[in-house]
This record gives sequence, structure tokens and C-alpha cells, in this order.
Amino acid sequence: MTVKAWGAHAADESVVAMDIQRRAPGPRDVQIDIAYCGICHSDLHTIRSEWGGTKYPCVPGHEIVGRVSAVGGEVKDHKVGDVVGVGCLVGSCKHCAACDEGLEQYCENGFVGTYNGPTADAPGHTLGGYSQRIVVDQDFVLKIRHPESQLAAVAPLLCAGITTYSPLRHWNAGPGKKVGIVGIGGLGHMGIKIAHAMGAKVVAFTTSESKREEARKLGADEVVVSKDAAQMKAHANSFDLILNTVAASHDLDAFTALLKRDGTMVLVGVPEHPHPTPNVANLIFKRRAIAGSLIGGIAETQEMLDFCAEHGIVSDIETIAAKDIDAAYERMLKSDVKYRFVIDAATMA
Amino acid sequence: MTVKAWGAHAADESVVAMDIQRRAPGPRDVQIDIAYCGICHSDLHTIRSEWGGTKYPCVPGHEIVGRVSAVGGEVKDHKVGDVVGVGCLVGSCKHCAACDEGLEQYCENGFVGTYNGPTADAPGHTLGGYSQRIVVDQDFVLKIRHPESQLAAVAPLLCAGITTYSPLRHWNAGPGKKVGIVGIGGLGHMGIKIAHAMGAKVVAFTTSESKREEARKLGADEVVVSKDAAQMKAHANSFDLILNTVAASHDLDAFTALLKRDGTMVLVGVPEHPHPTPNVANLIFKRRAIAGSLIGGIAETQEMLDFCAEHGIVSDIETIAAKDIDAAYERMLKSDVKYRFVIDAATMA
Repeated sequence: MTVKAWGAHAADESVVAMDIQRRAPGPRDVQIDIAYCGICHSDLHTIRSEWGGTKYPCVPGHEIVGRVSAVGGEVKDHKVGDVVGVGCLVGSCKHCAACDEGLEQYCENGFVGTYNGPTADAPGHTLGGYSQRIVVDQDFVLKIRHPESQLAAVAPLLCAGITTYSPLRHWNAGPGKKVGIVGIGGLGHMGIKIAHAMGAKVVAFTTSESKREEARKLGADEVVVSKDAAQMKAHANSFDLILNTVAASHDLDAFTALLKRDGTMVLVGVPEHPHPTPNVANLIFKRRAIAGSLIGGIAETQEMLDFCAEHGIVSDIETIAAKDIDAAYERMLKSDVKYRFVIDAATMA
Repeated sequence: MTVKAWGAHAADESVVAMDIQRRAPGPRDVQIDIAYCGICHSDLHTIRSEWGGTKYPCVPGHEIVGRVSAVGGEVKDHKVGDVVGVGCLVGSCKHCAACDEGLEQYCENGFVGTYNGPTADAPGHTLGGYSQRIVVDQDFVLKIRHPESQLAAVAPLLCAGITTYSPLRHWNAGPGKKVGIVGIGGLGHMGIKIAHAMGAKVVAFTTSESKREEARKLGADEVVVSKDAAQMKAHANSFDLILNTVAASHDLDAFTALLKRDGTMVLVGVPEHPHPTPNVANLIFKRRAIAGSLIGGIAETQEMLDFCAEHGIVSDIETIAAKDIDAAYERMLKSDVKYRFVIDAATMA
């Protein structure tokens, strides 16, 4: 079937409306009429082929919420009318060790991304959520239990939410733990909310004094301006965990020095230009670690959505019309958004 | 009391014999007549002030074995005639969280190194094991349970042994685990022996095809020449733990790519020139970590010594006379030693 979508025909072209094909739902498929789709920085990297390897036409979008409009005969857990979400993954091998553990994001045979991933469907690569409708294997469809009035603000949980929730859970953020969140943007603002809800003491790091009050309102117990050496020093050797959401190249040592013995700093963004090489002595003399973490698996994404519904957590968003995607990208590059753009799919037609 | 020692009077001077003072044993002190002292690369860095901050005269040595020749009135666990060891630490605050956990190497108030550390004794900094006798707080004296015939070869366990044992234990090397040891030198050859004795599958990495047979004899199940891309690729995504003993600047990514999901590479050496900055994507896409580890605490050092005694593990050594320390340093710089020099203290007089 033909549906309207928004995407680009080449790396250097604008985002425009286009017609794309969606497959008819197979026996294990869920067809979703999309209500909202968040805009992630990865969308921009991909549509402009900044990471290389983008296939065109490119339709980004992996923070998808909507309503089930059809299901295949073997679908058990979703029915027409259900409010559901789709995140960064729409497929994986389902038989490797990672998939067996519910860690499809680390699928040893390569997960299928929601856009720019391999598929038998036309045009040979997956097309994402900047579209009116999507058809997805039931195993990659999440249940949304938030009130419907919050649906637009739920969309960013599917990527920004799980990308922060998963490492916070994996490295045991919770009561009695001091957790740092570096960067107060699309990811960081979710990290603050989620770490706070988990019961950790949350310290937000920002380069901008102006974000102090906002960060407190998001749930930070303390806010540190990372350019201020005295403020930084006051927190030396005190963090159990630092979740670093800043993908721009920066000095990691300033943060590893704030970790306790046995503390870990987790990176979730790949910088375009590498970070300066970290000081190895900073790791050795306190048995500290620098680790990475990638989104989350399907079961954990559902757990995150349920956790956020229970704790009344959504993203802070600005809703836009599809025709304004390019403008939103430009504003995102200037960090001029609090904190996530979400496309209203009603404007896609 | 005056004892003979070997050390340097300045960063650019040779190692020479000198007289130093040792305190009379206090109530909690153990006086040890040194039998052997291993030569660690840190000795060379310190005596030449390559890390800065060396105080002179400098008497290195923190791989000490010998026999108790006097004890203070409150000493309970050691008696005259006991064969004992002293490693990298001779003091710590004994009341911080790290000391409370038996992790004196991470003492939050700074441990006292066996040489170049702060002390009330003349000349105001600690003097190490390149000497006939040393007086040490009983809490930092280890019991040696190896046969006396192995004493010289036990000495390097006090630094090279514990530096590899501690991370292998902390990151759970053992049956069912695949453990890599990078570098086959003073540290690495101990890492191979210990990881093998812990029951792990051990793969040794070397830059030199010529070390293949030696590494196998040390206990490696497999040996990989790290310059050979095909050999390296065959081990991609397969290691639970990689213990990287190479302190020279090198490409860490070649090894992080060999870690399984959730695997850790542990660095134990601070390079003079920094490693190239590690690829963050290598960490993120498999939730891998790069960590550091520093020697080990006193309780763990005793555990290591007992483990090695039980498994018949000692270092492979070349015994030298004190007058040949400078020559040994030069050979060490060329990796011309299998695998540790040990000074026979009988030659110090």
C-alpha cells in the first residue's frame, strides 16, 4: 500500500514529502497508523549520510507511537486500536546469544534498524517513522500505557528514553547511588528524569549556567557547570556512575576524575571527531572504567515504558509539522530545543 | 641502624652502593633481613625520575622476600625466622573506606609506597628493597609459604604477581572464561600462569612470533601474533576479559574488538606517551569497557601468594648481583630478560 512519508532523495537534498510502499501485514505483522514520531540526532546523521552508507530515498524516524490498524493472523499480543510504539529496532536474528537474552540491540548477526536497515520490502532498505503508517514484526512492537493525552511526549522514550534507561539499570542506578548525567539535551534530560525516578542522587553537568534551574526542575539534586574547575573538584571521587550523553568531542578525564573507586562512566554517543585520549592513570589508580551502551533490548524497552508510565515520565517536547523538519534539524544543531522535536503525523498528508 | 643499600643520588647517576639508616623496630614493626628483591620497571622510572617527583637518594625495590630478624612487642602474626615478603605498600591510613575493605592500594588518603613514599624515618622518604634489611609495619608484611628453594623466584610475585592476579580475580577469570593476556614480559608471563591456574582459557598476545612456544609453556592455550590481522580477526568478539600489560603506547581498538559483549579490557600500565584514543563505537556497540587496575590490597596479596604456593607458581627469573643493576635496567629496556631480574641481597654488602 502507498503511504505518505517525509524524507530525502539524496544526502544534500531537503526533506520533502514522498510516497512510499508498506507491505501488507504478514501473519506475524502489526500495522500501525503513526500518530507521532520524535526527531533524533541519528535521523540527521543518517539522512545527510554523515556516517556513510545511507541508502536513498531515506525516511528516518525511530521514536514512533501510534495505533494498531491491522494485525496478522498469528499476532496474539496486539489488537486493532491498541496504542503502541516502535523504537530503533524492527528485526534481529532471534537465535543468537544476545537475542536469546533479550538484548536484540547487540544481535550477533546484526539487528535491523527501523530505517536504513536491510529488508525484503521495497525499496530494499527500511523506511522509518516520518510516515503515516508502518508495518512491523509483532516482536518489535511495544505497548504504551501512558495516558493518550501524553502520546506525543511518549515518542522520544523509544530512543532517548531507552538509551539512558538501559545503562542506568545495567550499572545499578538507584537509592544510595550518586549518578552524574553529562549534557542536558534530548538524551540527558531523559537521563535526569529516569535516574531521579530510580531513586539515585542525580547531579547534572552542563556547560551553561543558564541551564541550572531547568536541570533542577527535571529532577537534578545538584547542577555542576563543567567549565568551572572548582565546582568540578568539589565532586572528585564521588560518583558511582556517570552517564555521558555528549557526543561532541570533549575531555573525558574531567569526568572520570569524579568517579569513585570502581565507578564507571558510560558513553552513549559516538563523536564525529574522537575525544582526546583518556588518561589511563585516572582509570588505574581508582579501578575506574569507561564503557559504552547502545539503546536497549525489546523487553527492557517495554520495562522502561512501563516504568515511565508508572512514574509519570515523558519527554519535554516541541511538536512540529512535517514541513518544518529541515528547520527543526537546524535548530537541533544549535541545541535550540527543549528537549526533543516530535512530528505530528497528522501533518504528513 | 646502618645497612647497605643500592640506589642513585640523582636522576642521571648510576646505581651505586650506599649506607642508609633503618629505624629500630617499633612495637608493631617487623625487621626483615632481605634475601632477594625483584626489579620492576617502576624502579627504573622512579630512579630516573621519569614520572617526576623522585626524592634522592633513591633506593628502589618493592618485590622483597626475606627472613624476619626481629619483631616489636605487639607483633603477633610474625616471628623471628619466618620467611616473609613485602610488596609495593608499607603503609596506608587504615581508616578510609578503601582500607576498611582491604583495598589499601586505593587508600583515599594515599598509600605509602615501599620507596619514594612519605615517612618520618630518615631521609624523609621511604627506601626500598635494594638493601640488606627493611623495617615494616606488621600489617604490610606477607607470609611466604612456597618452598625456600623457590624464594628468589617468589620475589616478583609481590608486584608482577599481584598486579595481574587482582584484576584476573576482580573480573572473574576462571573456568568457562576466555582470557587474553597482552604482552609477555614481567607482568604478562605471570598473568598467563595465574589465569591458567584459575582455570580460564588463556590466549597470549605477542608482537613476536618467536615467543609462541614460550607462551605455550607458560600456560597459554593459544598464542596470537597481534600484528597478524587474520589471527586477530579469528578471535573477534570472543573474550570475556583481556588483561593488557603493555605500557607502551599502542592501538587499544585492536583488542577491544576482540571482547565479547559486556567484556572488559583492563589496563595495568601507564604509558609514557598516551595510547591513541580508543574508538568509542567499539565500546558502545557491544557494551564493552576499558578499565584500570592497580596492584592489589594486602589481604589479596596474601591470597595471591597462597594461591601461587598451592599451584606451584613462581616467576621465571634471572638472578643478578647488585653491581649489575644498571646493566639489568638496560637489558630490561630491550626486553632482554625472561622474565624478571631478581637481585641476590647477598651481593649487596
